[in-house]
Amino acid sequence: MIEQTEITLQARPRGFHLVTDEVLAGAPDLADVEAGLLHLWIRHTSASLTVNENASPDVRRDFESWANDAVREDASYWTHTLEGPDDMPAHIKASLMGPSLTLPVSGGSLALGTWQGIYLCEHRDDGGARGLVATLMS
Amino acid sequence: MIEQTEITLQARPRGFHLVTDEVLAGAPDLADVEAGLLHLWIRHTSASLTVNENASPDVRRDFESWANDAVREDASYWTHTLEGPDDMPAHIKASLMGPSLTLPVSGGSLALGTWQGIYLCEHRDDGGARGLVATLMS
Amino acid sequence: MIEQTEITLQARPRGFHLVTDEVLAGAPDLADVEAGLLHLWIRHTSASLTVNENASPDVRRDFESWANDAVREDASYWTHTLEGPDDMPAHIKASLMGPSLTLPVSGGSLALGTWQGIYLCEHRDDGGARGLVATLMS
Repeated sequence: MIEQTEITLQARPRGFHLVTDEVLAGAPDLADVEAGLLHLWIRHTSASLTVNENASPDVRRDFESWANDAVREDASYWTHTLEGPDDMPAHIKASLMGPSLTLPVSGGSLALGTWQGIYLCEHRDDGGARGLVATLMS
Repeated sequence: MIEQTEITLQARPRGFHLVTDEVLAGAPDLADVEAGLLHLWIRHTSASLTVNENASPDVRRDFESWANDAVREDASYWTHTLEGPDDMPAHIKASLMGPSLTLPVSGGSLALGTWQGIYLCEHRDDGGARGLVATLMS
Repeated sequence: MIEQTEITLQARPRGFHLVTDEVLAGAPDLADVEAGLLHLWIRHTSASLTVNENASPDVRRDFESWANDAVREDASYWTHTLEGPDDMPAHIKASLMGPSLTLPVSGGSLALGTWQGIYLCEHRDDGGARGLVATLMS
């Protein structure tokens, strides 16, 4: 069985944000799913999705620091500069983290580890609301 | 329902290439799919797949510049050097971008955002044609 | 059809490890699958999964060298330092390589390329055994 919904995540500042609850509120209902997969797709090229530690805000802050160091706004080789200094680094960061997640579902809920949560990685200074497509296969 | 095809992408020079149309031409037909997932797998360890901005060639050029800066051919720590200076960096870049994409299908076509396109990331100087496996679940 | 199993990978030292055989031994049986997808999920935020070259141990050693260079333990910006110098870099590396793989299955086995194998990327000094969820859709 396949169910599909669209989710709009509220606008957030640049950085890494824990959005597990907001995603689950908009995704197809998992309660009756014995075993399956929940696929999430972000319909943007300057924001991304990953799963990481769900407890400490300093982990998410350190993700942002590392990303800014690994993909520098002041790198001399950028040629796509028309949309501002945060734009081209946002494209790179988006592909590094990736545009989608495929999450296991088991016994009516996500089969994540204890410390795992879903991150929205907002790579633009002013990215606005972000649209996802959620597809449940069960 | 599951359909599977093999796709051969023509040889391309090292760099990031927009291949959405070539992929769709070889993938299972999406026209009758109300909701589903299209999975793409690249059968190589020195080329990869990602989704990013589909309009400006300079974005794809900047991807190549960043990748060459982040994974340097002249790094002192490489030990796997037998296959040339572009080989080991190609393996790293391939895992950074990833070997597969799982794309949402909705109403008979890919449910991508307006600016999203499929990239073949060719990390070798002379990688040759690249083989994909496309699997449609609907 | 959907089948799901849990796999426990034995503890390994920090580094990149070829685990194709250990994963297949614990995953749902692929022998009767004409076409499908095998999804693997790692239930941790400091270890990850990727696919890369399955022949040369020096490739896997070079992955570890690059990762340690790209995500430095001595970076000045880490604030999440309570769990040791290898912890925060492990979180970043885990998201770079990614928490899951979706692998094509064809004619009763994984439809990987000749040189592709599954890596467990162990980013902690002492990560212990690692748990996976394997989901087969066929």
